[in-house]
Amino acid sequence: MKLATLRRGGRDGTLVVVDRDLKRALPVPEIAATLQRALDDWDRLHPALEKVSRSLNAGEVAGALPFASQDVAAPLPRAYQWCDGSAYLSHAELVRKARKAEMPQSLYSDPLVYQGGSDVMLGARDDIRIADETWGIDLEAEIAVVTADVPMGTSVAAAGTYIRLVMLVNDVSLRNLIPSELAKQFGFFQSKPPTAFSPVAVTPDELGEAWDGRKLSLPLISHVNGRLLGSPNAGVDLDFDFPQLIAHVSRTRPLGAGAIVGSGTVANRDPAAGSSCLAERRMLEIIADGEPKTPFLAFGDSVRIEMLDQQGHSIFGAIEQTVKRYVPPSA
Amino acid sequence: MKLATLRRGGRDGTLVVVDRDLKRALPVPEIAATLQRALDDWDRLHPALEKVSRSLNAGEVAGALPFASQDVAAPLPRAYQWCDGSAYLSHAELVRKARKAEMPQSLYSDPLVYQGGSDVMLGARDDIRIADETWGIDLEAEIAVVTADVPMGTSVAAAGTYIRLVMLVNDVSLRNLIPSELAKQFGFFQSKPPTAFSPVAVTPDELGEAWDGRKLSLPLISHVNGRLLGSPNAGVDLDFDFPQLIAHVSRTRPLGAGAIVGSGTVANRDPAAGSSCLAERRMLEIIADGEPKTPFLAFGDSVRIEMLDQQGHSIFGAIEQTVKRYVPPSA
Repeated sequence: MKLATLRRGGRDGTLVVVDRDLKRALPVPEIAATLQRALDDWDRLHPALEKVSRSLNAGEVAGALPFASQDVAAPLPRAYQWCDGSAYLSHAELVRKARKAEMPQSLYSDPLVYQGGSDVMLGARDDIRIADETWGIDLEAEIAVVTADVPMGTSVAAAGTYIRLVMLVNDVSLRNLIPSELAKQFGFFQSKPPTAFSPVAVTPDELGEAWDGRKLSLPLISHVNGRLLGSPNAGVDLDFDFPQLIAHVSRTRPLGAGAIVGSGTVANRDPAAGSSCLAERRMLEIIADGEPKTPFLAFGDSVRIEMLDQQGHSIFGAIEQTVKRYVPPSA
Repeated sequence: MKLATLRRGGRDGTLVVVDRDLKRALPVPEIAATLQRALDDWDRLHPALEKVSRSLNAGEVAGALPFASQDVAAPLPRAYQWCDGSAYLSHAELVRKARKAEMPQSLYSDPLVYQGGSDVMLGARDDIRIADETWGIDLEAEIAVVTADVPMGTSVAAAGTYIRLVMLVNDVSLRNLIPSELAKQFGFFQSKPPTAFSPVAVTPDELGEAWDGRKLSLPLISHVNGRLLGSPNAGVDLDFDFPQLIAHVSRTRPLGAGAIVGSGTVANRDPAAGSSCLAERRMLEIIADGEPKTPFLAFGDSVRIEMLDQQGHSIFGAIEQTVKRYVPPSA
């Protein structure tokens, strides 16, 4: 089943079931007006949503709308929890090398996560609005899952059972704001502007054999200004899988239904796979040539993040964003 | 106007208007079923809520219920944004000294905040459920404001206009989990279990002269097991006020309506004021006697956080919590 949220209908938008080909969508107000409401009562509501999905895929539903990525908000336009891992340690090693920061040894045994802000989430086509081009604007292509209520103290063995949906993420980062912010020791805040999500979120069964209950084993394809940045396989070189991440973030607190847990920037150790962010590419350039050649994103630049199934069809639709200058309100 | 959320009615509870004396409460489903809905459309809805409040305070409303702190959830039982400052630098200095961490110089010019988790918020009487007593369980008594939508790039001069509500916070911390977590450089996660809030949130006008649009100048009174821990004045030694905190957290991202912005642990430089957390008291003991005498919280311990107006009446009701052992689900 594929689900999306149209912009219309208020702050939380309007839940639609989308067909497998991402061509048609059907609002389901009689089941759940919003995705959060569906997640709040998933066990009771998902059979009805699945039924709509089957009919839609069979072409039997009247009243379906054309599905257009331009019309979507994030699947959860605002969420109660967004915690993002850094589960591909080859990425962590490279970006730390880039900012001359040490790699704490504990990262190799204990998952690294940061608490993200979730009150304003971007749809797949929303602009990346930044006030200052010199902040080091970067994309970070990732996988995320959406969970049910997860009890505090959930084991790794049980954590996978709470995964309800999977989606793609662009965890936009402001690289040049990170060092001074992390120096203050309380983690990211200003260096993480709003995060963007794929047009649709899908139930794990939509992923077939690519999903083994712990990770998604397909290339995650990122482009910048139409040029391939990388296509590392999200199932390769993942040091902590989703059940491990969920168990980690629920150790001392429960997660509420609709919590979003991210993988961190997808990265493979094989350099031929390319990168999912510019900071990594720049570090590889520094290692090879002594200096970075690839700039961070500038106003007008575009990014595209997508994942194709074994037959070459887009699973989640593409995140396609343009960086735009933001002019703050006058005081 | 004082507002609270009763547990009944689903995950977001039921909004009630509470009288000034915290004796009676009236649900207002015809205006807004939940506090989040009221905040989502505050400009349109607050006049009707104010009208109910005036009638309730005049004793003219039929159908009011007795208001009991036992029945309340957090004003926002789940929120989209909870960011907490560390605006009293004397607190920051002491707790860093306690864990032998350096005080970054940037903290004196740039507000320090951390991104908190907001999917599970505790009501004023909810137990503090912790699996392991050795984690260094501590209270942190704070002030927080709830905002309207705040545009990205809001100036300090404009930021105060977005404050809608004020409330008290117990930002529970697990002191012994903090050093290893901060060593990983991405801020708090496991060391911050769910946060608790006062029974009611109040509009700034309820605070009279104690609220100057930037800070709340009254003692914040904390007790542990019935013994006074401290009563520092929240308007004294505040290094960054709420407009400064709001401008800081909205520099690179907007805030959504209902965002909660906290002051951090209230602390005065005068030791006679006492403390709002145990870590500070322990550090003062170490400075005086070479070792801490006061233990962190143990199972069965209770905390009480309250603020009284000039006439000695409780403004927000009291946060009264007991620490309980949490038994994780078996795998």
